[in-house]
Amino acid sequence: MSGQRVYDFAEGAREMRELLGGKGANIAEMTRLLGPDRVPAGFTITTEACVAYMEGGGTFPAGLDEEIAAALARLEAQAGKRLGDPDDPLLVSVRSGARESMPGMMDTVLNLGLNDDSVEGLASRTGNERFAWDSYRRFVQMYGNVVVGIEGRRFEDLIQAEKRELEVSLDVELDAAALRRLTEAFKSLYEFPADPTAQLHAAVAAVFGSWMGDRAVTYRRLNHIPDSWGTAVNVQQMVFGNKGETSSSGVAFSRDEVTGAPQPSGDFLPNAQGEDVVSGVRTPRDVSELGEWNPEVSEQLMGILRTLERHYGDMQDTEFTVEEGRLYMLQTRNAKRPAQAAVRFAVDAVVEGLLEPEQALLTIDAGTLETLLHPTFDPHSQYELLAEGVAASPGAAQGEVVFDAATAIAAAAEGRDVILVRSFTEADDVGGFHAARGVLTSEGGKASHAALVARGMGVPAVTGAGTLTVDEEAGEVRIAGEVVLRAGDHVAIDGSAGAITADEVPVVAPEMSTAFETVLGWADEVRRLGVRTNADTPEDARRARRFGAEGIGLCRTEHMFFGENRHEAIVAVILADSDDERREALLRLLPLQQGDFESLFEAMDGLPVTIRLLDPPLHEFLPPMREVEDRLEVARRDGSDEVAAIEHELSRVRALQEVNPMLATRGVRLGILFPAIYEMQIEAICRALATARARGVDVHAEIMVPLVDYRRELEVLEEQVERVAADNGLTRGVDYAVGTMIELPRACVRADEIGLAADFCSFGTNDLTQTTLGFSRDDIEGRILSRYIEMGVFDRSPFETLDTPGVGQLVRMGAWLARSAKAEIKLGVCGEHGGDPDSIEFFNDSGIDYVSCSPYRVPVARVAAAQAELRARA
Amino acid sequence: MSGQRVYDFAEGAREMRELLGGKGANIAEMTRLLGPDRVPAGFTITTEACVAYMEGGGTFPAGLDEEIAAALARLEAQAGKRLGDPDDPLLVSVRSGARESMPGMMDTVLNLGLNDDSVEGLASRTGNERFAWDSYRRFVQMYGNVVVGIEGRRFEDLIQAEKRELEVSLDVELDAAALRRLTEAFKSLYEFPADPTAQLHAAVAAVFGSWMGDRAVTYRRLNHIPDSWGTAVNVQQMVFGNKGETSSSGVAFSRDEVTGAPQPSGDFLPNAQGEDVVSGVRTPRDVSELGEWNPEVSEQLMGILRTLERHYGDMQDTEFTVEEGRLYMLQTRNAKRPAQAAVRFAVDAVVEGLLEPEQALLTIDAGTLETLLHPTFDPHSQYELLAEGVAASPGAAQGEVVFDAATAIAAAAEGRDVILVRSFTEADDVGGFHAARGVLTSEGGKASHAALVARGMGVPAVTGAGTLTVDEEAGEVRIAGEVVLRAGDHVAIDGSAGAITADEVPVVAPEMSTAFETVLGWADEVRRLGVRTNADTPEDARRARRFGAEGIGLCRTEHMFFGENRHEAIVAVILADSDDERREALLRLLPLQQGDFESLFEAMDGLPVTIRLLDPPLHEFLPPMREVEDRLEVARRDGSDEVAAIEHELSRVRALQEVNPMLATRGVRLGILFPAIYEMQIEAICRALATARARGVDVHAEIMVPLVDYRRELEVLEEQVERVAADNGLTRGVDYAVGTMIELPRACVRADEIGLAADFCSFGTNDLTQTTLGFSRDDIEGRILSRYIEMGVFDRSPFETLDTPGVGQLVRMGAWLARSAKAEIKLGVCGEHGGDPDSIEFFNDSGIDYVSCSPYRVPVARVAAAQAELRARA
Repeated sequence: MSGQRVYDFAEGAREMRELLGGKGANIAEMTRLLGPDRVPAGFTITTEACVAYMEGGGTFPAGLDEEIAAALARLEAQAGKRLGDPDDPLLVSVRSGARESMPGMMDTVLNLGLNDDSVEGLASRTGNERFAWDSYRRFVQMYGNVVVGIEGRRFEDLIQAEKRELEVSLDVELDAAALRRLTEAFKSLYEFPADPTAQLHAAVAAVFGSWMGDRAVTYRRLNHIPDSWGTAVNVQQMVFGNKGETSSSGVAFSRDEVTGAPQPSGDFLPNAQGEDVVSGVRTPRDVSELGEWNPEVSEQLMGILRTLERHYGDMQDTEFTVEEGRLYMLQTRNAKRPAQAAVRFAVDAVVEGLLEPEQALLTIDAGTLETLLHPTFDPHSQYELLAEGVAASPGAAQGEVVFDAATAIAAAAEGRDVILVRSFTEADDVGGFHAARGVLTSEGGKASHAALVARGMGVPAVTGAGTLTVDEEAGEVRIAGEVVLRAGDHVAIDGSAGAITADEVPVVAPEMSTAFETVLGWADEVRRLGVRTNADTPEDARRARRFGAEGIGLCRTEHMFFGENRHEAIVAVILADSDDERREALLRLLPLQQGDFESLFEAMDGLPVTIRLLDPPLHEFLPPMREVEDRLEVARRDGSDEVAAIEHELSRVRALQEVNPMLATRGVRLGILFPAIYEMQIEAICRALATARARGVDVHAEIMVPLVDYRRELEVLEEQVERVAADNGLTRGVDYAVGTMIELPRACVRADEIGLAADFCSFGTNDLTQTTLGFSRDDIEGRILSRYIEMGVFDRSPFETLDTPGVGQLVRMGAWLARSAKAEIKLGVCGEHGGDPDSIEFFNDSGIDYVSCSPYRVPVARVAAAQAELRARA
Repeated sequence: MSGQRVYDFAEGAREMRELLGGKGANIAEMTRLLGPDRVPAGFTITTEACVAYMEGGGTFPAGLDEEIAAALARLEAQAGKRLGDPDDPLLVSVRSGARESMPGMMDTVLNLGLNDDSVEGLASRTGNERFAWDSYRRFVQMYGNVVVGIEGRRFEDLIQAEKRELEVSLDVELDAAALRRLTEAFKSLYEFPADPTAQLHAAVAAVFGSWMGDRAVTYRRLNHIPDSWGTAVNVQQMVFGNKGETSSSGVAFSRDEVTGAPQPSGDFLPNAQGEDVVSGVRTPRDVSELGEWNPEVSEQLMGILRTLERHYGDMQDTEFTVEEGRLYMLQTRNAKRPAQAAVRFAVDAVVEGLLEPEQALLTIDAGTLETLLHPTFDPHSQYELLAEGVAASPGAAQGEVVFDAATAIAAAAEGRDVILVRSFTEADDVGGFHAARGVLTSEGGKASHAALVARGMGVPAVTGAGTLTVDEEAGEVRIAGEVVLRAGDHVAIDGSAGAITADEVPVVAPEMSTAFETVLGWADEVRRLGVRTNADTPEDARRARRFGAEGIGLCRTEHMFFGENRHEAIVAVILADSDDERREALLRLLPLQQGDFESLFEAMDGLPVTIRLLDPPLHEFLPPMREVEDRLEVARRDGSDEVAAIEHELSRVRALQEVNPMLATRGVRLGILFPAIYEMQIEAICRALATARARGVDVHAEIMVPLVDYRRELEVLEEQVERVAADNGLTRGVDYAVGTMIELPRACVRADEIGLAADFCSFGTNDLTQTTLGFSRDDIEGRILSRYIEMGVFDRSPFETLDTPGVGQLVRMGAWLARSAKAEIKLGVCGEHGGDPDSIEFFNDSGIDYVSCSPYRVPVARVAAAQAELRARA
């Protein structure tokens, strides 16, 4: 830990963000860039001091008070005023400033330095008694609220009482005498310290303390900011935008913060303090009108915005104050902005010569880009929010409420738009996903079945809308017991925002802008990682290809078993007594699967298509036991002929029940136990390959064996594939490749051995996360995830962003081992993490060759992969 | 691969076992030790030649025929006879000999070299025409069967026909003419090669081929012998024990092979070949009577047995032949023997100065020692086997058949002996295990719930008796549809042998012999690994202590929740709506748990007791949903008052359902979600500790937090433990320790971080195997395990012996990381593998400090740990 814990603004720089916080570092940078006259002077107390404060159980580390006093003395010397001076007092603001901006989450105290004496000096020096007493009143109120912890309501009550007394309605109608009375009344609520040094000490401590306040802790959890960072505290000389009509306060962006258009935007209010601009009591004026109000200030501000933007190489979001005609810059930071503004800025910045393309790429938050591809609620529309849920699959949709897949399919067949509403979804519901415009569930998070399947298909979804009770049987959705939606009612969801409404809301469809295409083009120049897509249908494949996918990294063949006719056939396969019966049912599926693969090969002409053999747990193909039991009961009661058949079915279903299906008969185990199933799939792939080739399609088929633990498992399958392929006149290495998924910890540990037998390995990070952590995604999301985030066990779901210290270590070990055994082996990632920017950075750094993600994440992955590579080179 | 593929017996030695096979190496050793006159000459074709033969797809590698021819020429020169010589033919035996003995599993051809010409030479040289033709007949029969693959039955049919023709009943009644006719008839069944060189080539190829025969493959699977070893082939000059009354054949052990008593034992038959001794057609004489038959030979044999035993340092199992008064030794090997003989030999060998204690220890198969502690069926008894199952928990037991835990408990209360018979068992059945004398299931293997619980409690169990259909509802056990047992019927099981019978069988109880105590004493001197026990009750704890346990390594507190009253209370805890309700139910459990812990501390006075906080999946404490649904239906129909309460219960049970309970709300997750449960357990431990101390008990309590993934999880619990303990006046490090189980792959990868927060870590290898392999033990054992063994994926269940290349790597990594973070950390293993000798060797080599196993495995673990250490030092 460095010795120095207080830095004058003139000493700092933007690179000192970790120590000085974002705000402090930027003020220091502005001070150096624009000169000390443009930025009110002050100093920053470091984040390390805050950490020391927390570690000391809420006491200042030794010597800190002295360092602050010294800095204050320097500030007083520079300002030519003293804190608490009864003639001409220095006033300061005390503001938090963490490494990452946490807007509104932490505390601020303004006008510090006032007391019964200095307020008089302020009044006489400004010649404005009302201003002086209003400033004092505000300080006593803020101090009482922020530092002492008095409820804000109690101050408001006193203000209201005063207004009633005077029969006025607005704060501004309170005169100096009233404000003086109010200040006295406020001071009676707590022991107000007249000594400005004591005020300062207490205010700094309060800001430190606010770092561990509930609001701040919650915000950090949501935004993945570690508690251990601490916050810096900025003490700055006050300037006043409320000193009359030549003063003003405002916020200004260097470009339009919504569209990214190259005109500055923002708001200002003459004769007002910063908080008035934000509070909305008076309607602020657009910053484009600043020239009318004061052309010189406007000119200065525009120049400063250009200077700051050029200096930071990014769009800026600033605060300014004009005190009696003189412009002060209070703060600047890189502007948070929606994807479209980010993309437009990046392209314009390159055209303007502000940035090189590689620099421009790094200004974009890749994770937000997906929103550019999906329809959304018209941002100008008004609607009543019925409930909020998890923004599980982006895009907006509306239609009639339906409660089951069958109804959804029937309604879609009639051309009606429907939203599938369920408490949660299962494999059987997947047909309904295809038919519905959107999916809404009351349970499950971003990695629930509903969310995963919906994202994979590009169907909008809101999940985990916990205030809703979905009663499928009654055909009702209730909130707190009251029915809010019935089957057939209109509902609209926005899966990008998590919004649910019963109102009709206009939905706007996006286009892929040329600016976006330009950015993606840059990304493709830079990135090392290949980007493929997870796609099970030709529609998905074609869409992903439009978005730039360089092949299919994961085709889940199980989704091909859920159509009409098909499900029945696969159930017959599983329940068959003999291999002959099984083969007969499979013969019905063979031409259907062949057709599926042919269309996929055609859609991906010239690109690789990785087909995963059947993977899901057995039970997904079984009728629920209870249902069979009920049928048996009915049949017995009716003396039906079918009793024996149903009894037999029940005994099969019973025998195939599994306690932990995720850890049981799945993937290659299913393939080895029921060889006829994989045999059919391999045959279908081979035939489709031959047929597509005959039509001139350039096929690159990769057959992927899931859930391999042991090299021998893979070998058994390889022998089968090679035999069936040879019967179809195909040769491994020439016509197709065989590889495996690395999705179990054992496979990571033995990846050298397994890699020797495989042409490629694809890390299935969803399953690998489940087994490495012993977390079932289906079970963990509801109860445990939120509690764990709350307890600080982790800061986000390990199913959303790869758990790099745990699961990531196994991925890295697996990649290293596989590569050490076979240098030319192709290594991919096909879990959900393949579309998550943070995880992509880890994969890029771990020697992975490509990621595969859902179609709508393909552009995200392209940009994230480029950013990862740029950061790796830096 | 070495060039030489054929070795004369005079060239080999016992150290060449891998190359020459066990038999070949031992014959060579005997030849050197006893001189060439005592051992018929011959040569060995190496295992490498067999491997080359397999890799060549069943063809001899180039040059092998020539090497064999050269070796044969040397043999002929030494014997002074030629193969196929019409005047005085050399005859040879061709026998397999793998690295590990596989008795009866592979093929043998005797009397090779005979044909229509040489049989005459044999007849004239021996002056015994019948002997010559009988030898020829046997050869043609064996050759046809073994080499050509003709069914044995077809030869037997011809023999029967000949006997009918001659109206005789015994083989020995067939005269030379009849045997000549039979030989001709046998030769008509296939093309018999007259050329002895061709005979030899084909016989060697047949022995090679028998290595991959079904019988041999199955045997190897069961005995964990890799296919890749191959077998050697021994070609040896024939000697004949059937040349009249001065000849004989026999087998001899250097000591009693059942008891280990220091007198040679065995059988011999005058005027007979080796196969006659074994076949049981004539009753052989005890080898102690050999002196009466031929004192000189007897003297020679006794001397040779002593010489061999001293030379090999182990009990020997030999075959010998006396040809016309001259003793030949055909084979010797270390004797397989039951545990009691092994223990007695070890002790006697040290007393006799034959071996040092450390050498004697290594002669014992540690895995068999458990049988010395359990009762068994009287080995002299006769009974009819009803069925066979898996020897799941050793010991014999008998009693009345009962089909559910409640009946078992009731019957036991009346003093009746019962056997709990079920298709499979679940947590609810555990009360029945305590009450029953034994457990029998039709499903599940050695690692099924029934097997694990039974072994843990020391209750005999036979599981997976697949021919039985257990119909609990009907109260019947059927075989192939026929009822074989009803409730109340008598049944007896031997869990050491897997035997099931309806007969009354005397059960014999063992004592812990002083010899066994001596061996265990030596083991304790040598071993580095500590040995603790898994025990949940004071009875188990005391038993384990008698067996030498040095503490409790795992007390599973969940088993304490299954008694009467207790289960009800824990259900109330789980289903409670509020923390208050939950606390109220827990208050009922607190004194019960406290009592449990007090008794454990007392039983383990002076030794450490590791208590694992509640671990099992939530659903084990929930009533089955179907049952609640049915209750609701009944209540609704009856218009009962309880409808609302049951509806509420149902909604709670439904909300708590989990898809993959093993991966869901368990262990520390349960503790964090429902803090009141662990609070109660910790309180109970602290109070018990204080109470026991006050009674003068020396308590070493170790509190273990299960299923930790993240250091933070452990920290949350540590804070809770330290707080509750402090409230009870206890201090960590002084009064108790806190540690964790490492049982998830993530915990292994992060063991350094987790280790920093823990006083000790215990590897839970059951769960670690489940997650590393993605194998649910409950689901894998039935279908997948046997198929995988059959397919050669693995050779034994990874739940029985640690999967060292996969799971073991994670254990090793975890141990290394934990130790690197905190050198003094205590590392244990408390999975089932803690009692498995092979796994113990791995743990010893991985720097583990102690293993913990079920009470009856404690002596096994003590010896295995000593052997591991001795091997590590070698």
